Amino acid sequence: MGAPTTEVCSLAEEVRSAARSLPSADRDAALMRLADALLDHSDSILEANRRDREENPDLSPSLAARLELSEAKLATLAEGIRSIAKAPDPLGRSLRATELSDGLVLRQVSSPIGVLLVIFESRPDVLPQVGALAVKSGNGLLLKGGSEARHSCRLLHRIALEAMDLGPVIGLIESRAEVSELLALDHIIDLVIPRGSNALVQHIQANTRIPVLGHADGVCHVYVDTDADPEKARAVVLDSKCDYPAACNAMETLLVHRDFDALPLRRALEDAGVTLHNEPEDWHIEYSGLECAVREVSGLDEAIQHIHAHGSGHTEAIVTENPQLARRFLDGVDSACVFHNASTRFADGFRFGLGAEVGISTSRIHARGPVGVEGLLTTRWTLVGQGHTAGAFSSGEKRWTWRPLEG
Amino acid sequence: MGAPTTEVCSLAEEVRSAARSLPSADRDAALMRLADALLDHSDSILEANRRDREENPDLSPSLAARLELSEAKLATLAEGIRSIAKAPDPLGRSLRATELSDGLVLRQVSSPIGVLLVIFESRPDVLPQVGALAVKSGNGLLLKGGSEARHSCRLLHRIALEAMDLGPVIGLIESRAEVSELLALDHIIDLVIPRGSNALVQHIQANTRIPVLGHADGVCHVYVDTDADPEKARAVVLDSKCDYPAACNAMETLLVHRDFDALPLRRALEDAGVTLHNEPEDWHIEYSGLECAVREVSGLDEAIQHIHAHGSGHTEAIVTENPQLARRFLDGVDSACVFHNASTRFADGFRFGLGAEVGISTSRIHARGPVGVEGLLTTRWTLVGQGHTAGAFSSGEKRWTWRPLEG
Repeated sequence: MGAPTTEVCSLAEEVRSAARSLPSADRDAALMRLADALLDHSDSILEANRRDREENPDLSPSLAARLELSEAKLATLAEGIRSIAKAPDPLGRSLRATELSDGLVLRQVSSPIGVLLVIFESRPDVLPQVGALAVKSGNGLLLKGGSEARHSCRLLHRIALEAMDLGPVIGLIESRAEVSELLALDHIIDLVIPRGSNALVQHIQANTRIPVLGHADGVCHVYVDTDADPEKARAVVLDSKCDYPAACNAMETLLVHRDFDALPLRRALEDAGVTLHNEPEDWHIEYSGLECAVREVSGLDEAIQHIHAHGSGHTEAIVTENPQLARRFLDGVDSACVFHNASTRFADGFRFGLGAEVGISTSRIHARGPVGVEGLLTTRWTLVGQGHTAGAFSSGEKRWTWRPLEG
Repeated sequence: MGAPTTEVCSLAEEVRSAARSLPSADRDAALMRLADALLDHSDSILEANRRDREENPDLSPSLAARLELSEAKLATLAEGIRSIAKAPDPLGRSLRATELSDGLVLRQVSSPIGVLLVIFESRPDVLPQVGALAVKSGNGLLLKGGSEARHSCRLLHRIALEAMDLGPVIGLIESRAEVSELLALDHIIDLVIPRGSNALVQHIQANTRIPVLGHADGVCHVYVDTDADPEKARAVVLDSKCDYPAACNAMETLLVHRDFDALPLRRALEDAGVTLHNEPEDWHIEYSGLECAVREVSGLDEAIQHIHAHGSGHTEAIVTENPQLARRFLDGVDSACVFHNASTRFADGFRFGLGAEVGISTSRIHARGPVGVEGLLTTRWTLVGQGHTAGAFSSGEKRWTWRPLEG
């Protein structure tokens, strides 16, 4: 390796440099070639994946399932990449256009962020999928996959670069030591996206100055108001906890108004196999399983206070037939997603209709909540004049018009 | 002081808690009261300001001018705050509305970020001005002014809180030690905005995990192409360098195509008192005065490479009559502002028509370039249903419609 810092830094700079010509390249054609190549090379991909699985015989069943590729998974993957290719170009859209003065036109234009670092675990199919999103949005990409998927990732990386023929726009990192070095490159890498366990996200948030898109915790709440429809309350509470208990958007604490009869809700949860916890020390826990905390509150204000004191700013729901109260909850709860008479499980990029989901962010800067491809974009300002000078405005020779223009 | 960490942390939490009721408060009426109070108390404000100036007799003339308040400055300040009050409410705007399914409506709504920490130097009028922007956008605000403006800031802070009567939504910090403590509170403070010298911004960027809105450097370029109109080149180059040489958007390096006659440009700059530098070690310098680097390049590609290698991603301009080349420059230069036949000095929130300028950001995350009040906003997702569950979609009982709605 020699001097690893230099090597990883060079890789990052190479990716950034290659990515800067992406916006003008035919990215959609490259993505169609990538989709074809995944199917053309399915035999060798599945062979590399078999080696990964043979070398890692002791994975848990869920990790083993995530590691395994199949003809069917590759077909779905290729289909997904084709739909990304066919989607409208997210770059160069004019978000705002203003005539500043006669012959002087300002535009705010959607642009790539620059270089993304995506860190994922086990699933090798993340590589072409995230690679396709990065290319579509004109970004360079540094990827670190799980070591258990090494053979699959190496081959998928080679196939992707060869098929797309866009230069080294995707860099593959294999060691944790290299990730630590990359996390220090805040002058080259613009955004880190960790896709994996809470522990992974927390570790990365604590070890980099680069902005991190993601969330460490998902302590979501459902508040059942005294004016709740009991049947809606039952449906929303059960779905929020039991539809997929391991998800970050599952309910972890149920807040019930003291004048609402909580007994049927408690029974329904217990009948569904949910263990209920009733102590204050349970209020901050993300159970990620068939368990949840339950607390009686005196009303909306106490519910909101509880959410702000113990929540993670992810997703909260109120169940009530009182529209004024619902409005106060929607306006007053400072979380990424705030719902009325709907399950917390809807907090999801696919369900929100955003297409491919890049992640769910509990940050308030850049993107918040479920994030689609627009989370990989920033804007630039372009100004076109005829030799205009600022001095001509101070002297009064020219006048500002600040006239909004269409597109 | 006892335990200062706890005290500053309590102040930050108090501000956050008070700010959470801001969105539903009558913020515009509070701002009108603030504008009135500044005029009603002008005698005592000017008296406090006189004390600050008497206690700091050795300030440089420019710092002394920034510190000094006057009847005229207070009148302008009050007028500015009234116009912020009269502007449309930036909160609760629906940026995107989608019917996810029958009776299930998703909205992405503009929201306050949370708690801002603004650090400024000398100018006490920043306090009510930034305070007004924070209140308008529903954010809590922690402010640290320069110690030389201590008496003015204390009084302005007290007047602002009393007049607005919105609770402790603005906290005033007086010591550098307290700032260091605040910079560690990344779980309470959401955005830091340093307004001051490059050294201040660099110090803050290096000492916090909280996102920083701002820019440390402004190494801006003008590239004069071989197809440039000589008169436009002269106007743009002179204005970019000389209109206000200390500004971050002033030209620091002039790039000239080797087939363009650079001599008249050099002479014009020298006639305007500009010292020209010609060595590679000059290419990264922000002179902030009547000096600049000049480099001959072989064409557009070398100009763009130079900008990416030596620039700060702030503002760059091309002068050319060739529209294809201009397009390649506008698309290919990865900076916050990219101009064609216009002076770099237009990179400014007021000139861009954004109203009050919060700062100019060279970050690619959140806000980029000149930032107005929208840089103090984030979004939240609200979802209103009728007891909808995710399970009903997996089972096929319900269907997604994902129908875009108006507003």
